[in-house]
Amino acid sequence: MGNVMIEAGGAYLALETGMGRQRFHAVWLRDNAWDAETRAPGNGQRLIALRDISPDIRIEAAEIAGTDLNVTFAPECKTISYDLNWLEVHAYDRPTLTETGWTAPGIEVWDGRLMANVPVANFGAVSGNVEAKRDWLAKVARYGFGKLTGGPVTPGALFKVVELFGYVRETNYGRHFEVRTEVNPTNLAYTGLGLQAHTDNPYRDPVPTVQVLYCLESSAAGGENMVVDGFAAALRLREENPDWFDVLTKYCARFEYAGEKGVRLRSRRPMIELSPDGELIAVRFNNRSAAAITDVPFDDMATYYAAYRRLGEIIDDPAMEVTFRLNPGECFIVDNTRVLHARKGYSGSGTRWLQGCYADKDGLLSTLAALEHRMPEAAE
Amino acid sequence: MGNVMIEAGGAYLALETGMGRQRFHAVWLRDNAWDAETRAPGNGQRLIALRDISPDIRIEAAEIAGTDLNVTFAPECKTISYDLNWLEVHAYDRPTLTETGWTAPGIEVWDGRLMANVPVANFGAVSGNVEAKRDWLAKVARYGFGKLTGGPVTPGALFKVVELFGYVRETNYGRHFEVRTEVNPTNLAYTGLGLQAHTDNPYRDPVPTVQVLYCLESSAAGGENMVVDGFAAALRLREENPDWFDVLTKYCARFEYAGEKGVRLRSRRPMIELSPDGELIAVRFNNRSAAAITDVPFDDMATYYAAYRRLGEIIDDPAMEVTFRLNPGECFIVDNTRVLHARKGYSGSGTRWLQGCYADKDGLLSTLAALEHRMPEAAE
Repeated sequence: MGNVMIEAGGAYLALETGMGRQRFHAVWLRDNAWDAETRAPGNGQRLIALRDISPDIRIEAAEIAGTDLNVTFAPECKTISYDLNWLEVHAYDRPTLTETGWTAPGIEVWDGRLMANVPVANFGAVSGNVEAKRDWLAKVARYGFGKLTGGPVTPGALFKVVELFGYVRETNYGRHFEVRTEVNPTNLAYTGLGLQAHTDNPYRDPVPTVQVLYCLESSAAGGENMVVDGFAAALRLREENPDWFDVLTKYCARFEYAGEKGVRLRSRRPMIELSPDGELIAVRFNNRSAAAITDVPFDDMATYYAAYRRLGEIIDDPAMEVTFRLNPGECFIVDNTRVLHARKGYSGSGTRWLQGCYADKDGLLSTLAALEHRMPEAAE
Repeated sequence: MGNVMIEAGGAYLALETGMGRQRFHAVWLRDNAWDAETRAPGNGQRLIALRDISPDIRIEAAEIAGTDLNVTFAPECKTISYDLNWLEVHAYDRPTLTETGWTAPGIEVWDGRLMANVPVANFGAVSGNVEAKRDWLAKVARYGFGKLTGGPVTPGALFKVVELFGYVRETNYGRHFEVRTEVNPTNLAYTGLGLQAHTDNPYRDPVPTVQVLYCLESSAAGGENMVVDGFAAALRLREENPDWFDVLTKYCARFEYAGEKGVRLRSRRPMIELSPDGELIAVRFNNRSAAAITDVPFDDMATYYAAYRRLGEIIDDPAMEVTFRLNPGECFIVDNTRVLHARKGYSGSGTRWLQGCYADKDGLLSTLAALEHRMPEAAE
């Protein structure tokens, strides 16, 4: 049970239940009513705007009835029932977080030790079974990447992967792009260089939030794929030196790409992006397309470069990386706002053919949330 | 001419030219070298990473030679030439901006007085003439919206508009969506309501950054389209009450849409979004999909709601709006991170058929930048 008290002349109420004391403002409660005049019963869209709620709104009466809280508002003279569980879940009367760099619930940061437990599923299973799909997408959301095995060795198969959860983000590179490498003794030295781990297209705003890389041929030794958790790297930087973390969050870097006719892509965003209340929401890291940094004042530039250098060292640290080989019919997807990827050097000749494309996280997280809503997973 | 001095043991240099004194760090200069070993001559991609630059880098020698600055670095013993103009444009030795809510160069905020000067062009002209296209895209970038007239009255013509500058962002609503309204005396009251100005899909992260609405039929009186500059609204709020502006930038709102099977879209982003250094970069405003706000602490919630209410009043103020009618073959595009749009109520019966789709700003701004690079406009 519990009890409820109206305070401050009806400006808010205080609800005391087994969960402690939670205050809710009159305007917040009225705005979040779920009656059929406030919210469309079919799709849940709010039918009123804030302008439809009196600025003089106050709580006139409130009582707990079973699992509901009934609230009567003045001057409207309207009574709304709230589910006590819903109120508990949506309570906002709590101390504010002060530490910056927190991550959303459900995100698990990782380092090279995840190698023993790479998020992987079978293409046929996730295509044919919604529970398998839910579980694989949940891993992708948790770790920021995931691998699929046993898919068709067919050009365009990567689109079937995107159809599992969302929609292709077409860009100037097309709906998809080809990554073909002929590795022979004369160019082995070059292709053997590998690439530093990076996020793709930081010069795009918004960046493509998901990337799919799908393997169709792979006969050269080496050339493994490697991923690094950019959130883990950022948090390690914060642990080592909070000032370095701060400087990469508080100033914008610039990225640019003008490598083809008719294209001049540019962005101005921080390498480590926080929400205004300190959530770690994105990492951008790409030496190839980093443009001159001009938004850091002279007095902070040396610190900025020290931080940028150290972040790169952390990203390069083999202890951070998870490496796996893609064989034909295998692919991986990455959250391009979080997980950096790279290709290792080759150690033998042959060919490698991947197809890649971009997609977006909104679709992926929506598909996952809908599956989880329909089929809640057993508590972990 | 000018002179250059090496300071702090080579950690930076100070350049004195007609433009004043500008200091540049050794590591910044080296990282931004444009020699063929540092940057690929073809596409400008950086070939080195910061890890390839010694942490002990310092400037050993520097001299001005004509329009160049030649800098020799130790311990590398490498001399790089910098164009003095390039350095001037990219100088970072200046006081930091302190005011939050500044807008990018080239952005012009507006209110209802823009009605006399709606950014408009002819579809045929922008399709056939790159200068006309450049000028129209420049207006769209400047004002956040633009209208096209004289286009084909053909389903799917909106894709031709997107092809002018970029790529469709496909979502769960499809590559495009239909907006059909039959206005007759029995539903006139309902459709006569109009909609509050809003940004689309704030529950998506990233939001679609461009929207196109293309008219194919319009026989009902009324139903005009209306746009409001969300940046102007945010800045007016700041002017009226800086605390209200701040509270909408420092806490996240939440948005949600779960109106169709298999879809549960959610986001957590502020209504007024700033870059970490205070640039006004996005506005999200949509009463229909606003979810319960749970990230504002109790002590700030009343202020938050007062600010949210006032922002809505500013958006509803007729002095802020630009209204225009779309006739068949006409369309408009909006920057969905900035400009709110709405449909006015109907005053007579008939039909209205629009097709809409989403696209992204990266393509639009890239196309514009490439055109401006190729054909600089006369100074305004």
